Amino acid sequence: MARTASLSGFPEWLPEERLVEQHVLDTLRRTFELHGFSSIETRAVETVGQLLRKGEIDKEVYGLSRLQDDEGDEGKAKHDPHALALHFDLTVPFARYVVENAGYLAFPFRRYQIQKVWRGERPQEGRAREFTQADIDVVGDGELPFRYDVEIALVIAEALGALPIPDFRLRINNRKLAEGFYRGIGLDDTAGVLRSIDKLEKIGPDKVAELLKTELGATDDQAQAALKLAGIRTEDTSFVAQVRSLGVSNELLEEGLDELEQVIEAAVKRAPGKVVADLSIARGLDYYTGTVVETVLVGHEQLGSICSGGRYDALASKGNRKFPGVGLSIGVTRLVSRILSHNLAKASRSVPTAVLVALNADDTWGEAQDVATQLRGRGIATEVAAKAEKFGKQIKFADRRGIPFVWFTDDDGKHQVKDIRSGVQVDADPATWTPSDEDLYVQVTGVSPE
Amino acid sequence: MARTASLSGFPEWLPEERLVEQHVLDTLRRTFELHGFSSIETRAVETVGQLLRKGEIDKEVYGLSRLQDDEGDEGKAKHDPHALALHFDLTVPFARYVVENAGYLAFPFRRYQIQKVWRGERPQEGRAREFTQADIDVVGDGELPFRYDVEIALVIAEALGALPIPDFRLRINNRKLAEGFYRGIGLDDTAGVLRSIDKLEKIGPDKVAELLKTELGATDDQAQAALKLAGIRTEDTSFVAQVRSLGVSNELLEEGLDELEQVIEAAVKRAPGKVVADLSIARGLDYYTGTVVETVLVGHEQLGSICSGGRYDALASKGNRKFPGVGLSIGVTRLVSRILSHNLAKASRSVPTAVLVALNADDTWGEAQDVATQLRGRGIATEVAAKAEKFGKQIKFADRRGIPFVWFTDDDGKHQVKDIRSGVQVDADPATWTPSDEDLYVQVTGVSPE
Repeated sequence: MARTASLSGFPEWLPEERLVEQHVLDTLRRTFELHGFSSIETRAVETVGQLLRKGEIDKEVYGLSRLQDDEGDEGKAKHDPHALALHFDLTVPFARYVVENAGYLAFPFRRYQIQKVWRGERPQEGRAREFTQADIDVVGDGELPFRYDVEIALVIAEALGALPIPDFRLRINNRKLAEGFYRGIGLDDTAGVLRSIDKLEKIGPDKVAELLKTELGATDDQAQAALKLAGIRTEDTSFVAQVRSLGVSNELLEEGLDELEQVIEAAVKRAPGKVVADLSIARGLDYYTGTVVETVLVGHEQLGSICSGGRYDALASKGNRKFPGVGLSIGVTRLVSRILSHNLAKASRSVPTAVLVALNADDTWGEAQDVATQLRGRGIATEVAAKAEKFGKQIKFADRRGIPFVWFTDDDGKHQVKDIRSGVQVDADPATWTPSDEDLYVQVTGVSPE
Repeated sequence: MARTASLSGFPEWLPEERLVEQHVLDTLRRTFELHGFSSIETRAVETVGQLLRKGEIDKEVYGLSRLQDDEGDEGKAKHDPHALALHFDLTVPFARYVVENAGYLAFPFRRYQIQKVWRGERPQEGRAREFTQADIDVVGDGELPFRYDVEIALVIAEALGALPIPDFRLRINNRKLAEGFYRGIGLDDTAGVLRSIDKLEKIGPDKVAELLKTELGATDDQAQAALKLAGIRTEDTSFVAQVRSLGVSNELLEEGLDELEQVIEAAVKRAPGKVVADLSIARGLDYYTGTVVETVLVGHEQLGSICSGGRYDALASKGNRKFPGVGLSIGVTRLVSRILSHNLAKASRSVPTAVLVALNADDTWGEAQDVATQLRGRGIATEVAAKAEKFGKQIKFADRRGIPFVWFTDDDGKHQVKDIRSGVQVDADPATWTPSDEDLYVQVTGVSPE
């Protein structure tokens, strides 16, 4: 990110930066597929009615209109639920896809989805208008065992752990736990309480207490109890005892405590140090009904959550048929922006090419292509010079492009290959020569912070 | 494509169909990288001014406007060159990217770009409103040797040849050849002639002759000469003699003949049977200045071109600095739609998962995850059952999802794995067992036409 995007909020990478992004995407894909998640993509475009059907959302949506449409359906976008708009996340489109294709899917259906989404928000560090998300979800038909909440958290911890990023923490809470607790202390507008608690990191506990009292009519005791709950944060299941010590009893609260305990218990064992129970996590509006997750990069907390999501039991339905789901979404662009701006990882070279086949005369291009074909047959990325310039110039060309090896064939058909980093040049047979494993493909590796 | 898209022109694939698309995309990526092309992506969004700067285009563009924008910038989209719109191809955005980042790129710059594009056209078979293109281009700084025109055609022939699709033909022409010829016979509105010739397949030679006479004031002899040129089609370089026999002499014509001869000569040797010189290829409006290419699937000609492009010498410039380029674009969605609707290829299974680890009691989920972790460590995609249902039910679940193997661990810790296709069940060690190469990953293979 040496450069500034020419359109604010729409980042683009240079080729060597894109190699880092590709490494991130390939690593995520590989981890998700190893856990049996199928790839799908949904169209970038949804109807406005579909995007807004859960009522008010806090995402800025981009509407579409055909420039050459003389009927002027531009005005339509704001009012007509059939007008088209770009999706702002991958969960809402996925829920629509599941309902539409339910007859063709085997449930519980596990999928990953890696695509761009768009939000017309004010751009800032970590917040773009066009960005890539990588989601995994499991959706059931009618019911979905809670175990999948545990599994999704573990898969994401494994996926993030395989990336060249700093240490991270999944901060996990449960809406049933919070809602049950609020009800238990007599606060029935649980959505209102969650909205206030969600502001805790931004405005602090005093102002949240004020909000709870003025806007929701909470007493001082109720406000303090809600804040005490939100203050609980443990790396093991000791949050259960801490909540119980607050002396509130409610059935939904018990259900939530049990669910969150299951997640944390498994995580302590299977992803030690990566997961905390954090009872301040609320996740704003949105469609979550149980487990909720946000994720911070340790030392980069101000970047915001790099992976969020949770359990949604009512997002997708078809008549009486319900499709409860649980999923998490990784903010790929946010992560890659941070990797690049802080030099957290680097590609071993800037192009896929391992070998440039030099020309010693313009009419040897065909023979040079024959050499290249043999090398490519063994998976060695190879390009051929376009002109028979002086060898020094051809070597310089390779150097400028970041290609490590240059191949020479003399007039007698003798082959040599030069490692232009060391200057070492050796005889080589196009039918057998292979570079070291490190040089065969581009390697992307994490760089330790200085 | 058993199903109809819920939004006309916006196709979506089922998971097993997506596996075919992924195979196509992975194969293209691998071929492009083997030839040293770097991946880049550009933002989906360009300014209207950027998209339309080459003047009139025949593509229908989707403009963007923020639904929640109270200032009503919706009306802006039609008139303001700074308004935002979705790109309709990858060449125009790439040219903009090259100019913006020229200081950071090594020229000749080779890149591939695989992304979605949008056009608000009337949907029909082979023509969607949202679709994926896979482009390769080489762009020079100031000049670009003609040899890259040859190379690009060969790389595309190799890439298409690696896909599970029917035989194909690159139909190649050269604008210099055509324009020089028209000038040589006294028709100076060469763009007008090209536009008429472009309609040859749709309306036939008689109507094209009529157009040339009425719209461009051509004489009967001129019209017939233009049609004779367009009628030339050879699998080798004999088109040169055929053009010469028409007795027209013009410097630009000679240049075009020489260029096209170079492409065809190399193709006859390096991609035999895949390339023809076809002097009817015009490519409508667009920015091409030399080589032009369209590609048909043999037996599926009515599908339209599955890969098009050519040389553009004047698309990108920065002051006096010019960035001539040559590139081709594969219509991935058009190809994948055809593969799926005609059953030309199939995935060996419908999910990435190779093994389902069954549960014999609900509290053995942790041990089952341990088995799964060992298998995944060797690259075997594995999922774990969520509930300890009867084994028959768990096997049925695997069968329904298309998972070939089920893993059992009994109370004594004895492991067995069952191939549910053959029913064969054998003892197995989670530390060493591996399925056959065919079963390890999903295989996508072409299906011979019946």
